Amino acid sequence: MLDPRLSQDTIAAIATPPGDGGVGIIRISGTSSLSIAAALFRAASSTFTALQPYHLHYGHILDSTGNELDDVLCAYMPGPNSYTGEDVVEINCHGGRAVLTAILQEALSHGARLAERGEFTYRAFMNGRLDLSQAEAVVEMIHAPTKAAMHLAQVKLSGLLGNKISELRAQLEYLRAQLAVAVDFPDDEIECLSPEALVSTSAQVRKEIEELLSAVDRTRAWREGALVVLAGRVNAGKSSLMNALLGRNRAIVTDQPGTTRDYLEESINLDGLNIRLADTAGIRETDDAIEAAGLEKGRELMDQADLVLLLADCTSPLTEDTLNTAGILAADKTLAVLNKSDLDGFDATHGAPLTDSGFETIEISAKAGTAIDLLCSRIRERILGGEGQPDPDELAPNARQATVLAEAASELLALEQDTAKSIPYDLLSVRLETACTILSGITGEIASNDVLNAIFDSFCIGK
Amino acid sequence: MLDPRLSQDTIAAIATPPGDGGVGIIRISGTSSLSIAAALFRAASSTFTALQPYHLHYGHILDSTGNELDDVLCAYMPGPNSYTGEDVVEINCHGGRAVLTAILQEALSHGARLAERGEFTYRAFMNGRLDLSQAEAVVEMIHAPTKAAMHLAQVKLSGLLGNKISELRAQLEYLRAQLAVAVDFPDDEIECLSPEALVSTSAQVRKEIEELLSAVDRTRAWREGALVVLAGRVNAGKSSLMNALLGRNRAIVTDQPGTTRDYLEESINLDGLNIRLADTAGIRETDDAIEAAGLEKGRELMDQADLVLLLADCTSPLTEDTLNTAGILAADKTLAVLNKSDLDGFDATHGAPLTDSGFETIEISAKAGTAIDLLCSRIRERILGGEGQPDPDELAPNARQATVLAEAASELLALEQDTAKSIPYDLLSVRLETACTILSGITGEIASNDVLNAIFDSFCIGK
Repeated sequence: MLDPRLSQDTIAAIATPPGDGGVGIIRISGTSSLSIAAALFRAASSTFTALQPYHLHYGHILDSTGNELDDVLCAYMPGPNSYTGEDVVEINCHGGRAVLTAILQEALSHGARLAERGEFTYRAFMNGRLDLSQAEAVVEMIHAPTKAAMHLAQVKLSGLLGNKISELRAQLEYLRAQLAVAVDFPDDEIECLSPEALVSTSAQVRKEIEELLSAVDRTRAWREGALVVLAGRVNAGKSSLMNALLGRNRAIVTDQPGTTRDYLEESINLDGLNIRLADTAGIRETDDAIEAAGLEKGRELMDQADLVLLLADCTSPLTEDTLNTAGILAADKTLAVLNKSDLDGFDATHGAPLTDSGFETIEISAKAGTAIDLLCSRIRERILGGEGQPDPDELAPNARQATVLAEAASELLALEQDTAKSIPYDLLSVRLETACTILSGITGEIASNDVLNAIFDSFCIGK
Repeated sequence: MLDPRLSQDTIAAIATPPGDGGVGIIRISGTSSLSIAAALFRAASSTFTALQPYHLHYGHILDSTGNELDDVLCAYMPGPNSYTGEDVVEINCHGGRAVLTAILQEALSHGARLAERGEFTYRAFMNGRLDLSQAEAVVEMIHAPTKAAMHLAQVKLSGLLGNKISELRAQLEYLRAQLAVAVDFPDDEIECLSPEALVSTSAQVRKEIEELLSAVDRTRAWREGALVVLAGRVNAGKSSLMNALLGRNRAIVTDQPGTTRDYLEESINLDGLNIRLADTAGIRETDDAIEAAGLEKGRELMDQADLVLLLADCTSPLTEDTLNTAGILAADKTLAVLNKSDLDGFDATHGAPLTDSGFETIEISAKAGTAIDLLCSRIRERILGGEGQPDPDELAPNARQATVLAEAASELLALEQDTAKSIPYDLLSVRLETACTILSGITGEIASNDVLNAIFDSFCIGK
């Protein structure tokens, strides 16, 4: 009971992103929302009597001394037809930090408590407005790097994954019921439910779970974006290539400001696919003392990469260090970029050692902009494995959901193997129950506080 | 007519701050707002027929292929009772960049144009919803670093400065009318308006303008915050003092992420006063090559400072470089901080050369936290000149308004001097007209496109 999320307090928070903008929103949820709003808000209209449900009222927020804090629009959304399922009040004010903080503090001084991370959505989940997979989709929606990622989140937000899981669970629950009957009538066990029928239904459900699991990898690049690392020696043209790629594909969605890295990273949008483009140059071109650490970091980056672009200056034979770098790279995760095709001294045959080692090569000029579009399409295809756009209706589980699905599939496989070994039906029933419990972790009907806390702690405050 | 602001396009923009948050808002304004919303929005309610004015409708935004982009709340605010005075639609969606961008692009694809900076507020101004001083107060409100700054902006946002200027202008216009009558009846000129009465009224208005001008300096620290620079040699304890001040007064309002500086700067909130605290240490403790540039930058910072804290390690006599720094500092902008009072070797008399040079001194220990509260109150008093809190009803003109007011006052002074020199009434009338025109630049009845562009270009997009 120490968890503040389990309390019935009225909670308040700034719901819009931090920073300065035209409009900001303070959200209040709980039984005291309306009375807090009544204390803070003075409507401009002389005919105003009370906040009308779902109506935008223009007026002012007053502080404790009666001073006007700001001009606002105030809306009251009574539960259960609100985001949280509780009484909610939203105050749209000017989007400045001092304004938002001042209004929030007035709400707190009238008895609201500052919301924990994700507490509004947690309440929506607890009040049955969303299942757990929908709650997770809220965060996936907010952090979606591209429109494709957003679509995959929206499919889950609309409840389709939760529905699919409930349907699979219902099949297993029906099987459990049949198994229970068989256990109760041991003499007619086989007639009630044959081992073949048991295995067949389990295998059928498991196949559907495995199909969902296969979507995890297939959609990963769409959901999370991909990391492409630029490698190569100092003068191979990494910065020029970075600029050439940025110039054509500058992402609308850029990284969160304020994150610091010891290498250069930029986001680009390749026809809907979000690519984080990292330049190892920033690491290496430091003074001698930290050169070793820099090389180590570069190697780590290349290990994490979905694709490494190994740049080679082909106006002269490949240098020792380019060949060394090639030596540590896997051909299936590397694209060798033969650069400087615009220069007279360029000779693609310099790249032969790379081709011979099984690397795909492409000739470009980063400076002159030659074949950059071709490079982009190769990057996209290498990462996506040829798929142009994601299926908009694909059910794409996230990492947590994938773990749950894999556990459930493995439990069903064990059930099928146990059945083949003629393990008694009452023991099989336990496995089936376990599989159902595991699956329910996706929609959250059965989920521990630890799981819930881990999920909702990944939210921002105000959501 | 090339200025897009003068067009009648329907405009759209993201109104909330950039970044990820619970909720984001797309704002659409203009004659096509409602039809664009009707094309994008599908209400969840089966009884929905059309967007009702000022009502929050729950539903989905659809893209051109009929896919759901996001769950949203949609509100229609018909003109003239809207922010811009035009038909406005606001869409509250999930606060993610891809979501906001996707919905904005749908609005644009249905015929809206991306709004220019400040264009919503510009339209509010052009449609008479706000005067120019109120429009400027919108930005001051959004960027206000503290609650005190916010209050000063709110007073102007509510129109009090505009009203005051209109009142002063009305007095001058009445004087102009009297002067016109006097010019029309030259024989009875003096009877219509005596030179004394003319001078007296002008001087009276001018005095009120000068009172407004005096508020500019008096409120500057409240409105803009103050810059306090930490100076002193490397081991004097600048970093410890920075941490001690930050630990107690961490500002809720921090700097915009993404701004880069070549020195360390943090914001603190001293009982409602925003202080930007800059440490010159970051400049100096670099390698020798750029030491000279660093010293130069430190000197610039000290020149800009509202107050310099000159730290001296008083466990030993002052070093040459501390005395050199003291030599370039003005005593009225410096507070000498005798640090390390917790150490055995501390001797306050080491600070005597500073006291002798007229510097106020204070003994503290940054490490042990001794007298930090006293230091904070001295910083506050030195910057504010003793005023504890701003007058919440003070009319505090901004820099542009101050320039306008100074010009108007100077025109009135010239009028009074010309009157004393018996310059003909018809020439005096020209001066009076000029003074009125100048004053109207504050409320914007007469303002050039250049002035308007300069003001609205300082807005963010979406406001």
